[in-house]
Amino acid sequence: MSAPIVGMIGGGQLARMSAEAATALGIGFRVLAQSPTDPAAQVVRDIHIGAHDDIEALLAFAQGLAVITFDHEHVPPAYLEQLEALGVAVRPGPSALFHAQDKIHMRQSLTDIGVRCPRWHVVSALDHVTEFATEVNWPVVLKTSRGGYDGRGVWVIKSAEQAAEVLATPLTPGAQWLAEEHIDFIQEICAQVARSPHGQAVAYPVARTKQIDGICAEVVVPCPGLVPERAVQAQEIALRIARDLNVTGMLAVEIFDTGAELFVNELAMRPHNSGHWSIEGAVTSQFENHLRAVLDLPLGDPHAVAPYAVMVNILGGEADDLYSAYRHVLARDPGIKVHLYGKAVRPGRKLGHVTVMGEDYEKLLVRGRHAADYFAGVIDE
Amino acid sequence: MSAPIVGMIGGGQLARMSAEAATALGIGFRVLAQSPTDPAAQVVRDIHIGAHDDIEALLAFAQGLAVITFDHEHVPPAYLEQLEALGVAVRPGPSALFHAQDKIHMRQSLTDIGVRCPRWHVVSALDHVTEFATEVNWPVVLKTSRGGYDGRGVWVIKSAEQAAEVLATPLTPGAQWLAEEHIDFIQEICAQVARSPHGQAVAYPVARTKQIDGICAEVVVPCPGLVPERAVQAQEIALRIARDLNVTGMLAVEIFDTGAELFVNELAMRPHNSGHWSIEGAVTSQFENHLRAVLDLPLGDPHAVAPYAVMVNILGGEADDLYSAYRHVLARDPGIKVHLYGKAVRPGRKLGHVTVMGEDYEKLLVRGRHAADYFAGVIDE
Repeated sequence: MSAPIVGMIGGGQLARMSAEAATALGIGFRVLAQSPTDPAAQVVRDIHIGAHDDIEALLAFAQGLAVITFDHEHVPPAYLEQLEALGVAVRPGPSALFHAQDKIHMRQSLTDIGVRCPRWHVVSALDHVTEFATEVNWPVVLKTSRGGYDGRGVWVIKSAEQAAEVLATPLTPGAQWLAEEHIDFIQEICAQVARSPHGQAVAYPVARTKQIDGICAEVVVPCPGLVPERAVQAQEIALRIARDLNVTGMLAVEIFDTGAELFVNELAMRPHNSGHWSIEGAVTSQFENHLRAVLDLPLGDPHAVAPYAVMVNILGGEADDLYSAYRHVLARDPGIKVHLYGKAVRPGRKLGHVTVMGEDYEKLLVRGRHAADYFAGVIDE
Repeated sequence: MSAPIVGMIGGGQLARMSAEAATALGIGFRVLAQSPTDPAAQVVRDIHIGAHDDIEALLAFAQGLAVITFDHEHVPPAYLEQLEALGVAVRPGPSALFHAQDKIHMRQSLTDIGVRCPRWHVVSALDHVTEFATEVNWPVVLKTSRGGYDGRGVWVIKSAEQAAEVLATPLTPGAQWLAEEHIDFIQEICAQVARSPHGQAVAYPVARTKQIDGICAEVVVPCPGLVPERAVQAQEIALRIARDLNVTGMLAVEIFDTGAELFVNELAMRPHNSGHWSIEGAVTSQFENHLRAVLDLPLGDPHAVAPYAVMVNILGGEADDLYSAYRHVLARDPGIKVHLYGKAVRPGRKLGHVTVMGEDYEKLLVRGRHAADYFAGVIDE
C-alpha cells in the first residue's frame, strides 16, 4: 500500500471523527494533540503530543506527511508557511485559512467578492462604536477579530456603557475590535461544501442550526421550511466563498436568515458541528469528504439518505458518568446513534452528540433532545 | 468517563472495523494483534502485540478489560477458561465459541437442538467415507473439524480415489475428518443476529452471499426473491441457535437454500463478512451491535436504511497499489463506499470491500463489481 498519510493538527472530536473516516478509507492518519487524553489521542495510533504553536513540534509532526489539515484554526500562519516551504501540502492553505483566523480579514474578503454580510467596522475606541451605532442602530455586536470560538469573544451590546465595559477587555496579541450590525434573524442556517485543490466542489443540504449561549445545540437537515430557492442561494454563497477564497477541504458558512435575506455570519474551514449529522445521514460524511478533498481525491456524494436528520449535542451537565446513561438511552431508542468523544465532563462542554433520522423532524428533535438531556443528567427517565 | 474497555483478540479487518464503532461509542478498545502491520494494529491506539495462543500474552492483554471478544475463533478453549477464571467476561464464552472452533461439535449440537443440517458423519478411514457415500450419494464434502477458514479445509469429493487423496492430508492436532452430504443449493444465504448476555436478540435482514473458491465474493441484502416466510425461517434458525448455544455478540449462520429447504452450513460467532454492508446499510452496524452485545448494552436497530445494499469484496489481484485506484473509482461513482484494510496485496486476499445502496440490486452489483475489479487490477477503465 502506498497510501498517503494525512496529518491533522488538533486532537479534538473533529480529529477523532476524522480518524474513523481515515480508517475506512485505508489512508494513514496522524494527529498532533495537546495531550494524550485529547479525544483523538485516545483512539488514534499515530499520535504526536505537542502544541499547535510550537514550530519544533510542527516540524517533527510534518515528517512523512502528504498533507496537513486542521481540527481547529489556531496555528499561526507564519508556521504554516514554514511547513509549506518544506514541501508539505497545507490544506486549506495559510492564505485561505487566515479568513477563519481573523474576522476582519474575513469580512473584508467577503465584502470584496460581493458576499452579503452584516455591516461591519473596525473600531478601536468607544466613539467609533457609538458612531457605528448611529448608523446601524443598537444593539451592536462587538467581536474580537481573533481567538474567539463557541460564542467566546462575541458580545451583543445595547449601550455605550456596555460597549465601554467590553472594550476594556484585554485583546489577544494581533487582535482588534470588530463592530457589526446586529441582524434580526428568523433562523440561523449553515451551508457546508467540500472543495478540492483541482476545483471540484460539492454542497451538502443546508442545515438549520440552533445556538444556545453561542454554542451549537442542535441541527436539523434539511432546514425545515427553507424554500428551495433560498437553500440554493445559501449553497451558492458557500460554493462562491470556497472558490474565491481558494478553500480546500470542508467549508462551513454560518448564515443569518432574516426571512428576506441571507447574511454571512462566520466561516469555518474544517469539519464543523453543523455537519455531524452527515456521519449517518449523508452518503458521504463531512469527515470523509474533508479527507478526500485535502488529498485531492474525487469527492463523495453529499446527499442525505433520509428525509430528515437531527443532531443534538451532548453538553456537560450534572452527570459525570456518561457511560452509565447508555443502558437507558439505548433501550429507550434503538434507532438513536450516539457519539461520545471521551472527554471529562465540564458544564457546557461538548461531550458528544446524538443523531436520529426519519420523516418527522419534530419527533426526531424530541428523541434527540431526550437522549442528550439524559446524558447531561437534566432528566432521569 | 468510566467507559469500559473491550478487548478483541485478533488484529484483522474485523477488529479494524470494530474500532471505528468503539470510537463512536466512546468505549475503550484494545486489540491483541500478531503484528504491528495487522489491519487493526495500524489504526488502534491501545494495541498489544502477541500471539492468540500464547497464554502469557493473553493474560497481559486481559489486564483492565471489562470483556474479551474475538476477531477470529482460534484461541484455545482452555486459555479462554483461564481468562474467565481471572474474572474477565469472555463473550462469546468458551463453551459457545467451541461450536465455531470444532465443526463436529457444532454439527452434534445443532442436531441435538433440532436444527436442520446436511447429513454428517465423523470418519477416520476411507471405508467410512465410501459407506457414507452409499447413504448420501457422491459427491461428498470432506472437512477438517478444526482450523479451516475461507474455504480451506473443505473438499468436495466425487470418488473414493479423491477421498483417499484428501484423507492423506495431515490433520492439525485435535482435528478429525467430518464427512457431509453435498447439498444441491440454489443459493447461499446468511442470517445474522446479535444476542446479549441478558438475552436480548435482534435479527438482521437475511443476506444472499456468493462464494468463489470458498471465499465470500459478494453479498446482496435483503436476499433477492427470498419469500418472507423463508427469510423469517432463516432468522428464527439463527435466533434459536444463538439462544440454545448461549451465544453472545454477533452470530452468523451460513445456510444452503435448496428452494424447498434450509440447511445450516457454518457458524461464526463474531462480526462476519456477510454483514459488512451494515456499516452504511443498517441503522446499527454489526460492529456496533457486537460491541453493544458483549457489553450487555441494549442492542441497536438492525434494519436496513435502503431497499438494497450490495457489498463486494476487494480481493488481491494484479494491482499492488490500491490507493492509486481511488482517483478512478471515486470519480466514476461518487456514491460508492470504499473500505480498505491496510493489507499488503496477495492474490485472493481480502483487502477491502465496497458497499453501494439503492433500489435496483442488479445495478448495484454492476457498480460494486466494477469498483472491486478495478481495485484488483482486473479491469483498467
